[in-house]
Amino acid sequence: MKAIVKKEPGKGFVLEEVEIPEIKEPTDVKVKVINASICGTDLHIWKWDDWSKQRIKTPQIDGHEFVGEVVEVGPMVKGLKPGDIVAAETHIPCGVCKQCKTGNMHVCKDMQILGVDRDGVFAEYVVVPEIVLWKLDPSIPKEFASVMEPLGNAIHSATATDLRGKTVLITGAGPIGAVAVQVAKVSGASTVIVSEVSEYRINMAKEMGADYIINPTEKDLVEEIMKLTDGNGVDVLLEMSGNPNALNSGIESLTNAGEAVILGVFPTNPVPFVMNTAVFKGIKIHCITGRKMFETWQIASEWLRTKRIDLSKLITHILPMEEYEKGFELMDSKQSGKIVLKISE
Amino acid sequence: MKAIVKKEPGKGFVLEEVEIPEIKEPTDVKVKVINASICGTDLHIWKWDDWSKQRIKTPQIDGHEFVGEVVEVGPMVKGLKPGDIVAAETHIPCGVCKQCKTGNMHVCKDMQILGVDRDGVFAEYVVVPEIVLWKLDPSIPKEFASVMEPLGNAIHSATATDLRGKTVLITGAGPIGAVAVQVAKVSGASTVIVSEVSEYRINMAKEMGADYIINPTEKDLVEEIMKLTDGNGVDVLLEMSGNPNALNSGIESLTNAGEAVILGVFPTNPVPFVMNTAVFKGIKIHCITGRKMFETWQIASEWLRTKRIDLSKLITHILPMEEYEKGFELMDSKQSGKIVLKISE
Amino acid sequence: MKAIVKKEPGKGFVLEEVEIPEIKEPTDVKVKVINASICGTDLHIWKWDDWSKQRIKTPQIDGHEFVGEVVEVGPMVKGLKPGDIVAAETHIPCGVCKQCKTGNMHVCKDMQILGVDRDGVFAEYVVVPEIVLWKLDPSIPKEFASVMEPLGNAIHSATATDLRGKTVLITGAGPIGAVAVQVAKVSGASTVIVSEVSEYRINMAKEMGADYIINPTEKDLVEEIMKLTDGNGVDVLLEMSGNPNALNSGIESLTNAGEAVILGVFPTNPVPFVMNTAVFKGIKIHCITGRKMFETWQIASEWLRTKRIDLSKLITHILPMEEYEKGFELMDSKQSGKIVLKISE
Amino acid sequence: MKAIVKKEPGKGFVLEEVEIPEIKEPTDVKVKVINASICGTDLHIWKWDDWSKQRIKTPQIDGHEFVGEVVEVGPMVKGLKPGDIVAAETHIPCGVCKQCKTGNMHVCKDMQILGVDRDGVFAEYVVVPEIVLWKLDPSIPKEFASVMEPLGNAIHSATATDLRGKTVLITGAGPIGAVAVQVAKVSGASTVIVSEVSEYRINMAKEMGADYIINPTEKDLVEEIMKLTDGNGVDVLLEMSGNPNALNSGIESLTNAGEAVILGVFPTNPVPFVMNTAVFKGIKIHCITGRKMFETWQIASEWLRTKRIDLSKLITHILPMEEYEKGFELMDSKQSGKIVLKISE
Repeated sequence: MKAIVKKEPGKGFVLEEVEIPEIKEPTDVKVKVINASICGTDLHIWKWDDWSKQRIKTPQIDGHEFVGEVVEVGPMVKGLKPGDIVAAETHIPCGVCKQCKTGNMHVCKDMQILGVDRDGVFAEYVVVPEIVLWKLDPSIPKEFASVMEPLGNAIHSATATDLRGKTVLITGAGPIGAVAVQVAKVSGASTVIVSEVSEYRINMAKEMGADYIINPTEKDLVEEIMKLTDGNGVDVLLEMSGNPNALNSGIESLTNAGEAVILGVFPTNPVPFVMNTAVFKGIKIHCITGRKMFETWQIASEWLRTKRIDLSKLITHILPMEEYEKGFELMDSKQSGKIVLKISE
Repeated sequence: MKAIVKKEPGKGFVLEEVEIPEIKEPTDVKVKVINASICGTDLHIWKWDDWSKQRIKTPQIDGHEFVGEVVEVGPMVKGLKPGDIVAAETHIPCGVCKQCKTGNMHVCKDMQILGVDRDGVFAEYVVVPEIVLWKLDPSIPKEFASVMEPLGNAIHSATATDLRGKTVLITGAGPIGAVAVQVAKVSGASTVIVSEVSEYRINMAKEMGADYIINPTEKDLVEEIMKLTDGNGVDVLLEMSGNPNALNSGIESLTNAGEAVILGVFPTNPVPFVMNTAVFKGIKIHCITGRKMFETWQIASEWLRTKRIDLSKLITHILPMEEYEKGFELMDSKQSGKIVLKISE
Repeated sequence: MKAIVKKEPGKGFVLEEVEIPEIKEPTDVKVKVINASICGTDLHIWKWDDWSKQRIKTPQIDGHEFVGEVVEVGPMVKGLKPGDIVAAETHIPCGVCKQCKTGNMHVCKDMQILGVDRDGVFAEYVVVPEIVLWKLDPSIPKEFASVMEPLGNAIHSATATDLRGKTVLITGAGPIGAVAVQVAKVSGASTVIVSEVSEYRINMAKEMGADYIINPTEKDLVEEIMKLTDGNGVDVLLEMSGNPNALNSGIESLTNAGEAVILGVFPTNPVPFVMNTAVFKGIKIHCITGRKMFETWQIASEWLRTKRIDLSKLITHILPMEEYEKGFELMDSKQSGKIVLKISE
Repeated sequence: MKAIVKKEPGKGFVLEEVEIPEIKEPTDVKVKVINASICGTDLHIWKWDDWSKQRIKTPQIDGHEFVGEVVEVGPMVKGLKPGDIVAAETHIPCGVCKQCKTGNMHVCKDMQILGVDRDGVFAEYVVVPEIVLWKLDPSIPKEFASVMEPLGNAIHSATATDLRGKTVLITGAGPIGAVAVQVAKVSGASTVIVSEVSEYRINMAKEMGADYIINPTEKDLVEEIMKLTDGNGVDVLLEMSGNPNALNSGIESLTNAGEAVILGVFPTNPVPFVMNTAVFKGIKIHCITGRKMFETWQIASEWLRTKRIDLSKLITHILPMEEYEKGFELMDSKQSGKIVLKISE
């Protein structure tokens, strides 16, 4: 089969013929990949940054966001059969640690990640355990299904708190921040304000339905927020930029007893953080990773099935698998939303 | 001033001249009533049913749903000034009981109700304590502001649980059930199913955006629900009919671990209830009265201010104060949504 | 091996030699049973009541509450090894339905129950899938470990809401109600009141730490509660009797905005229920079945490990397996707490 | 009357005769102070540090923690009468801002603090508005009642999350941290670990019931925690030290999906904070200020009334009002728990 492979240390990938993977465990499922999409993590691996050098073992097939069709199931698979359309949670939990046993598989202490710790989905076939597969209504457009993972990040973040009637500030309108605009609106937010510096992304946020967009290089974010909110501040912050200034201005922009949701990952750890401000305001901070398995997926599929969420403006490029290089370059330029690779029909 | 008064025991009201009420307590506010709307409670008092006979002392001005303009404030009023546009919570809490002290003023043990326990708002002026007044953005249409109380019932019910991605069954599409359709959608519900028998109300539910409407006199409600939900049942029941069959079919229609929200009041107490079904399904039941003070009002105003909620199809009749009799007859015929009386400009 | 078997329809069991069960699925675990305890369900099967006639297929080994030692594991078992001490959730979930996938395995739509739908634990060995086993700290007394299932019912009920500083009414002090007294205290309840009619159980409730006990055949429950609570009513009701009067008096005894937790199963479905009272009070009702998998087990084991919970007064009889008949007769007399059968060392 | 007064800028206070304050607003209550206790804030004012120089206007009576007896009530006071025993929330909310109107008076945007923004309680009489007074059961020991404010801080922190069966780390065992040990236990925590450097406070934590105490100057905190928790980490962190190292080690000590509660105030704002760690663990952070009005007070009084909480070991010194200077010196030495001043009988 064709696969996009990190053959050896260094920048880039190679598209080549590799062997089709086979079912090994009785709970495994073999899936024919229809579409796959490019994530920031894939870009790190493509560029071969420091993180990749430490984490990735070559040769390995890249990719983890995808939609596909089940073609074969192991003897202990219970909920799937050939022909089913599936997306997958790419965090493969161990199933037996304390977190897995108590409703927190998404932060399993012994997690494996598709395309990072084992072969990924930029290939015609992939074998994954049933536990991470999520069956989809066939009416959901296959392009949308391919990006359910980042959509899921936005939903996991937004569902950390009730947004009904709330004024929400989203700092950072990369693909996840951009789709979070729509997710916040569908969740009942009254007003969605976006803070973003890139013109491309400002436009994407607008198209996704942001009510106000503030460019913090042009105007003081906190001051603008206070003007827009009668001096009250916003009720909820969704921090999706990984930028320390955005994080701290976001906290300063919150109303007392507000809530902050942090999905961004910051360039340093520790990062300077206005904790006293947070304490005096009496806020709650939800730190988010991954997606709830599978509460987040349930919401995502229902909203896609009933067309409450429309990802057509988030997916800016659909490319044949062969043009993956173009996809990575686009992604690197930050002049794109989500980029979908068509792997097979 | 003109007022619609229950002069003496018996059916009907009288429109007559009465004295303008004056501020008595330093925390009182005098409001010029702009619009008032007719509630089911007013209809009970108009008809002079058994409940009214026991509860209402004549002569008394009727009415509690309204919007008005502040014209005078007592010396201890802190948050309002003449010219402010206000709606009011009609449940006047004592402020010092255990419920009032711990965030549950809406179920104060020593509650007074406007238009029931003291003079109401079907009059050109009303005096109420600041504690129940809620300041509104002047951009909110005055007709919509007048029905924020029943809108608040729907919001209090719907916000009892997270509706994102949920399939919701609303039993009963009277005015509150009808607006709950829209409230559920704005709250992120993926699918809203309504159960209703009256053709007028079936049409209203459709106009409010219901995805499916089932007439339980024509089809078996539980069976239809199971067809529509792949045998899973609905995630959430909003019971707004006060009909025991609707209540029990609603519970039977719920998925395991689902949630029921009960706003309806039933003709008998006790009522036959499928408690074992509820126990084996492991559901949660939220019993709702009134509106959270003022979390519910905050959401309602934000949704009205940002036009997320549009009440134009809920308000089917706007009548001059003088035609109040026509309003009550319409209300009694059940061929109406909300009826607004215009009291002054 | 020795096993207590329902050989054929009719009252009673037979203790006989049967074949030791073997591991069939790669996820199966073979456990040597140390102790097992008798549940109300076992009594139904012993008596061969109508429910048993419909549900139980003979011959079948009875029993589901137990503690044991792992002796063999299938090739896909990940978290257990021979020598581990385990208790088991007796509700075996399918793992793939909507409930199982979204954190509600305890109300799986395709549940199997040990000792009801398949051979149970009143035997020297039992084979169960890893998914229901819960590894225990070896320091926990084996008698206590054997009754973690009913303890879990009490914990699942009590953890439905925050009990800190709350006045709690428990209606019914059978074994689960009795242990709920202790669970409520450990959860921070300030006052625990028990309603119970049997003298044996009144004494058990006292020993478990109840602050007040009311016998509703002697005094009016609601009236007594109001005296004890300054007319406020209790904050939380834990209904564990299955008695309709207790249920309704319990609701009448609640303060406004209180919470009711219903674990009892009632003799009829529907049962007469004071729903209007519940609605006007604005209460929340949590209907409980089983135990959260495995949040409830986590709490139970931690409290047993750290000796916050002491079950020595709940376990009134420890009998050798051979005296099972005596155990069932004691259970039937209602003159017992939990009865533990010693199956092996 | 006698009062402890900050006469003019500079260190120390003066005990002198001043005029008895009178009721001014109809909602005011005059209280005869029985006991008052010394808070860290009072120490700042005594020392006249930078914060005090900016915030305090002299002359002013100091003090805010107290218990007293109502001696006179204004004409609009509804829930109190002379002879009632009361404690007071010392944060006086405006009552009309968005926070006050929606259940968050404790973070009112227009807050006044007793003894900081207006005359305090180190005096024989004080006049406060009814809204901050909390009526107490007379059986509660008056020494305990005097320290309900810091007890309330601990309860507000601990009730931010469910502690049942949880392993809790408390960083910092000053008076609030020390009482939090007992609060965590009463809340159902299975294990309470304290991190503290001062020997005096280590002893106090032991007396309050800590299961393990780690001195981070002697052992690596995170390493020790992992040993004590089988490598899982603690479920909940209560940060009560205001020490950045404690904060960050606390976060590193948390299990995935754990919860942190931050009451400490840090020497710098921003402070270096391991946000990425928090994000990858998927934790929740509750930032706490003050006490919930009056949910926290309700729990505190119930636990004191029913003797679930015993403050006798927390209150290390009871001094006559005249010895206030000794009290402040003790406080400054950090060789004390809470210090109570006896103001009148």
